[in-house]
Amino acid sequence: MEKWLVGVDLGGTTTKFAFLNTYGEILHKWEIPTDTNNKGKNIIINIAKSIDEKLEELDQPKEKLAGVGMGAPGPVDMSKGIIYEAVNLGWESNYPLKDLLEVETNLPAIIDNDANCAALGEMWKGAGNGSKDTICVTLGTGVGGGIIANGQIVHGVKGAGGEIGHITVVPENGAPCNCGKTGCLETVASATGVVRLAKEAMNSTDLPSVLREKISSSENITSKDIFDAAKDNDELALKVVDQLGFYLGLALANLGNAMNPENIVIGGGVSKAGDILLDHVKGYFKKFAFPTVAASTSLAIASLGNDAGVIGAAWLVKTLK
Amino acid sequence: MEKWLVGVDLGGTTTKFAFLNTYGEILHKWEIPTDTNNKGKNIIINIAKSIDEKLEELDQPKEKLAGVGMGAPGPVDMSKGIIYEAVNLGWESNYPLKDLLEVETNLPAIIDNDANCAALGEMWKGAGNGSKDTICVTLGTGVGGGIIANGQIVHGVKGAGGEIGHITVVPENGAPCNCGKTGCLETVASATGVVRLAKEAMNSTDLPSVLREKISSSENITSKDIFDAAKDNDELALKVVDQLGFYLGLALANLGNAMNPENIVIGGGVSKAGDILLDHVKGYFKKFAFPTVAASTSLAIASLGNDAGVIGAAWLVKTLK
Repeated sequence: MEKWLVGVDLGGTTTKFAFLNTYGEILHKWEIPTDTNNKGKNIIINIAKSIDEKLEELDQPKEKLAGVGMGAPGPVDMSKGIIYEAVNLGWESNYPLKDLLEVETNLPAIIDNDANCAALGEMWKGAGNGSKDTICVTLGTGVGGGIIANGQIVHGVKGAGGEIGHITVVPENGAPCNCGKTGCLETVASATGVVRLAKEAMNSTDLPSVLREKISSSENITSKDIFDAAKDNDELALKVVDQLGFYLGLALANLGNAMNPENIVIGGGVSKAGDILLDHVKGYFKKFAFPTVAASTSLAIASLGNDAGVIGAAWLVKTLK
Repeated sequence: MEKWLVGVDLGGTTTKFAFLNTYGEILHKWEIPTDTNNKGKNIIINIAKSIDEKLEELDQPKEKLAGVGMGAPGPVDMSKGIIYEAVNLGWESNYPLKDLLEVETNLPAIIDNDANCAALGEMWKGAGNGSKDTICVTLGTGVGGGIIANGQIVHGVKGAGGEIGHITVVPENGAPCNCGKTGCLETVASATGVVRLAKEAMNSTDLPSVLREKISSSENITSKDIFDAAKDNDELALKVVDQLGFYLGLALANLGNAMNPENIVIGGGVSKAGDILLDHVKGYFKKFAFPTVAASTSLAIASLGNDAGVIGAAWLVKTLK
């Protein structure tokens, strides 16, 4: 019997599921709301129930499943199977996620951080093209990342490997970051960071812009508004996109100088801007990368969208002995 | 019979050798000049002869040796056993170093870049304390590095992994680097880089300094002069050491944010300055590192000195199947 892999992408609002074959093809996918009430004590039970219900719906036995992989929203000790912190879910510190998942699902389980799972997904089936040396950066509400070297995720000593969003790109007079530092990549390259750069540029320059009208009519502007304006050659928006390219290009070039990965994949909501973002980042990447790195490390926009997490989580199941 | 490991550290001037036991203890060490004449065609033959002569001197059979590991001065494709470029040795591109080493020594051989070998040495027996997640940076004539994640060297796709010296720390108006870029860590943290910072500070400030007298009496100043002056509270020298701490602390913190290693080890001639260097770097490291990284990644001065390379090269022999 061909076995299926279960990939689970656990978020603070929604939990995404997929059954995949061993070639990484998604056969079935669905999602449920994440119940964070009562310190999140129903989360794992709901996941186990949902997997069983889907099997029943598909008229498949439990034996069809090889195991369950999960991406969790916080730093993880993969070998111990614990998540150090998951504030959004209500769980207490050092929550024994892997053991609970195995008990409730009655399946072999393996967990990692959600950004790492997204990186594994892009490595396996996405813009990483199967390369064992791939870095992913996700530009969303925050900026996350996952680093794969020699085919393995770099977790580091306390699970903070891949904290690309907290690379310092503005060493002096940078904006405050949620992490407590200032000048992090997240303060300039997240969805809110890009908007902040635009507001700063409006205050510090006289460049004309359609964005000024939006702001003065008290509408909120989004990162998409800024990229759309830049595509129409709006001077101020172009300046902001160039600034973003400078900071992101610098951070990624310096990661490249350290790791020389085959691919650096840019994902998340901000990456939907596509070529206009990629072109600006590539320009600064070439400027700041060691010549061998500039010639051998490729930059690309992520290709799996919201499926990266469940695909990468399923990949983890393949690593179970 | 207890087997010995052979570690070889091949440099442009000198080739260092050691026989080690499998616990990484150096039993015998010696060196010979590197003969770069005739496009370096005698280098490997001389190495093989020197190993045999030492065995004879010690009255030991060839079977005593488990294999030979070598650190080579250039980027290496470890799996193919080739060194892409070794300009200092006269070798042509893509030189088949591993195969030649096996043929001439009649021993199993394995090669890696010299900076990576130094990192492996510090990981195994030095300031890395055996941690599988260790980064080494070597501040010498240039700035080199080696990155170990999950117990393996990060080579990247074209052997440029660990090019820490070419991390861009002065993105705008930086000094030119030998690599063709500007503003690399090497331009401010190598032995010559530190001297350059001091000369810049003399021209751009009126700070009093004993270094001004040295310069005006047309003596050359060295990085050691600068650190010695800083230890005597020389204002200008302290400013330079602080600048160095800023740039090196920034680069290492950003490596830490990416990899969260257990240890970052600082070696090379400039690191002999000791605590005054380490304290300044640590201050900026804490400022620029993600809080988990600041709390869990340690900085230390390298402890093996010139032996790091042969010890790391010998470690490679242990990885041979």
